[in-house]
Amino acid sequence: MKKFSGYRCSVCKEEYGPEKFIYTCLKDGGNLDVVLDYQDIHKNISPERIIASTDRSIWRYLPLLPVNDQGYENTPLRAVGWTPVYQPGSLAQELGIDRLWIKDDGKNPTASFKDRASAVVVARAKEIHAEVVVTASTGNAGAALAGMAAAAEHQAVIFAPKTAPPAKIAQLLVFGARVFLVGGNYDQAFDLSVEAADEFGWYCRNTGYNPFTAEGKKTAAFEIWEQVILREKLTEPLNIFVSVGDGNIISGIHKGFKDLQELGWLDQMPRMYGVQAEGSAAVANAFKAGSEEIKPVKANSLADSISVDFPRDGLRALRAVTHTGGRYFTVSEEEILAAIARLGRVGIFAEPAASTAFAGLEKAVREGLINKDDQTLVLITGSGLKDVKAASMAVTEAPIVEPTLTALRKALSN
Amino acid sequence: MKKFSGYRCSVCKEEYGPEKFIYTCLKDGGNLDVVLDYQDIHKNISPERIIASTDRSIWRYLPLLPVNDQGYENTPLRAVGWTPVYQPGSLAQELGIDRLWIKDDGKNPTASFKDRASAVVVARAKEIHAEVVVTASTGNAGAALAGMAAAAEHQAVIFAPKTAPPAKIAQLLVFGARVFLVGGNYDQAFDLSVEAADEFGWYCRNTGYNPFTAEGKKTAAFEIWEQVILREKLTEPLNIFVSVGDGNIISGIHKGFKDLQELGWLDQMPRMYGVQAEGSAAVANAFKAGSEEIKPVKANSLADSISVDFPRDGLRALRAVTHTGGRYFTVSEEEILAAIARLGRVGIFAEPAASTAFAGLEKAVREGLINKDDQTLVLITGSGLKDVKAASMAVTEAPIVEPTLTALRKALSN
Repeated sequence: MKKFSGYRCSVCKEEYGPEKFIYTCLKDGGNLDVVLDYQDIHKNISPERIIASTDRSIWRYLPLLPVNDQGYENTPLRAVGWTPVYQPGSLAQELGIDRLWIKDDGKNPTASFKDRASAVVVARAKEIHAEVVVTASTGNAGAALAGMAAAAEHQAVIFAPKTAPPAKIAQLLVFGARVFLVGGNYDQAFDLSVEAADEFGWYCRNTGYNPFTAEGKKTAAFEIWEQVILREKLTEPLNIFVSVGDGNIISGIHKGFKDLQELGWLDQMPRMYGVQAEGSAAVANAFKAGSEEIKPVKANSLADSISVDFPRDGLRALRAVTHTGGRYFTVSEEEILAAIARLGRVGIFAEPAASTAFAGLEKAVREGLINKDDQTLVLITGSGLKDVKAASMAVTEAPIVEPTLTALRKALSN
Repeated sequence: MKKFSGYRCSVCKEEYGPEKFIYTCLKDGGNLDVVLDYQDIHKNISPERIIASTDRSIWRYLPLLPVNDQGYENTPLRAVGWTPVYQPGSLAQELGIDRLWIKDDGKNPTASFKDRASAVVVARAKEIHAEVVVTASTGNAGAALAGMAAAAEHQAVIFAPKTAPPAKIAQLLVFGARVFLVGGNYDQAFDLSVEAADEFGWYCRNTGYNPFTAEGKKTAAFEIWEQVILREKLTEPLNIFVSVGDGNIISGIHKGFKDLQELGWLDQMPRMYGVQAEGSAAVANAFKAGSEEIKPVKANSLADSISVDFPRDGLRALRAVTHTGGRYFTVSEEEILAAIARLGRVGIFAEPAASTAFAGLEKAVREGLINKDDQTLVLITGSGLKDVKAASMAVTEAPIVEPTLTALRKALSN
């Protein structure tokens, strides 16, 4: 496995070899970037060969991932990624921009972006012979781990805050995971999962904490590169709107584009735009303050997947934006709900944490920061079916009619 | 549009030209089969050309569909179909059969099989310049119509029984459909939608009633043909398990295989197995009685998508089985719930109406009707996220723990 050459701390740049069993930097606790041997990758693979792959999943990028092929053919684990990219004309028109792409990661096997990370982490677990994989999750990461572990017939243990939406918990349980509802918030569930992993020898998938999650998530960057940047032959940088909670999605995507740039396969680094809920804006606050210090907040947003007191990948999430010339935005709960309804009217059903990214684009357009000629992609990170309660808040209730034409005619005229 | 040559009544065989605006037979009200000009199709297309298509959606089969290309590129309408086929080893092993495929149609844009029908009906609506499309639906067909209409920017009107799960209604509303909750059951909603279509000049998508729904649904047969029968070079007939409510899914799939056989592209007709909930078994009752008379029942099943008093496509659904040497099975509510959990443990999340098909296979194996050497495919018709309440009934509730290792250790030993 020469392509994977070790880890580098995102804070102090300390390096560790690939044989080391490690989650975060031993010196300062900083998140670790996985280091790839770009020269070796260069020798073995070309962009043309990747583009010619008939594998329409994240596994077409196996040569750029720090894991080897672990099998799992014909299971949901093999079906992760290569999610559709839509170009809803009326949305672009309404926003007054010429080119808009919406990438719907709600179409992953467990209906969220998190499958990308979990698939790679489960493959890593098999490689290091870990029998149990554990994670703390508000829901999507847990469902993704539960689903991917089930597909691979590994055991998953999930710690979720007991306030997580029932729809998300039911999914964990159906996938056969051992679930514990933690009497506390996400951060307490996170700490408990880390302690339990140490104590019981489980492999910990925690977002940000485990360096392989970003490696899974970077596959979205590769797909955007193929599906939009190359296919549409873009000559200007693409603007990418991503909702931010823990920060690991935007940092993972940034890592993917950095990989492509290191390999010389990407001319222009896209501009990354992070969008947070006003009630959970730790990274956006740091951006606004012009600081790299991420201060915890008391998070409170209906967009539960991104409602986070302390972003576990905040620094890299901040840099994904500052290093690419993007911006952070915050949006209100009302704007998040309105974005669910707006996306729905072109046939895309997003959960609140996903519609947040679109609400951010709407705000950016209102503020004149995205203009007619800018080329923009919005990433939808989870299906609206994950949180139907929120969806029902985004729409007006349907009227009840008796089963007669007379009653219907009356209702239609209302 | 030469490939589409008209309609033929499935009861009296009366024929109608393609120019006729018609839903059911004017003589006896029988459901109409769409008649294709197989000779013309033969002239214009070969199986090799279809197999070589890079379009991974139902639209790769456009030469076999009674509609023309209506555009809608880069919308969810174009992303329908070509759903994944899994081969979960542990399931096959547990059942004691060598070859098992699970086709997950929950991966369609609105998370159910019904997208296939709605996509084709919306294309037809555009072709005949119908501005409003209406349907009665317990949920999935409505969501599919709402989603596909939204993608195509058509107006959808949906009549749903007011007892339909809130998750399904929220999805209709998010997609911008005009929804009416009918104070009555599905059958009353159905009748009202037909009356309203006549009264207001709307195009009626109703399952079974509209001949184009089966034409959309037949694309699943084409996919099974490519993804399993051809790819695996099957020499024995494939057994296909399908849950049955209205009956239009199994009859649509049967139509697809009949098309392939008429074209000479399919050697062996698969054996179709229909599975119904015990509480909604109108077609299975007729099968058991050896009669073609479908008698209404008072339906009562938690598998709401197949809980139907009077199957609108019952006769063709019965014949899909009797004409292919299959069988009908009924399964209990407990068996339906257990099947949700069993599928979940290999990473597949099915709604009750979908797990019903798998419960039928389990029963068939128990009864010795499917054996070790039989090659079997189970069709999963909708995502478990559609009905999380049912999912939570299929599993044991998760325990609550305080965020300490001590509390966790205690919970683990329980």
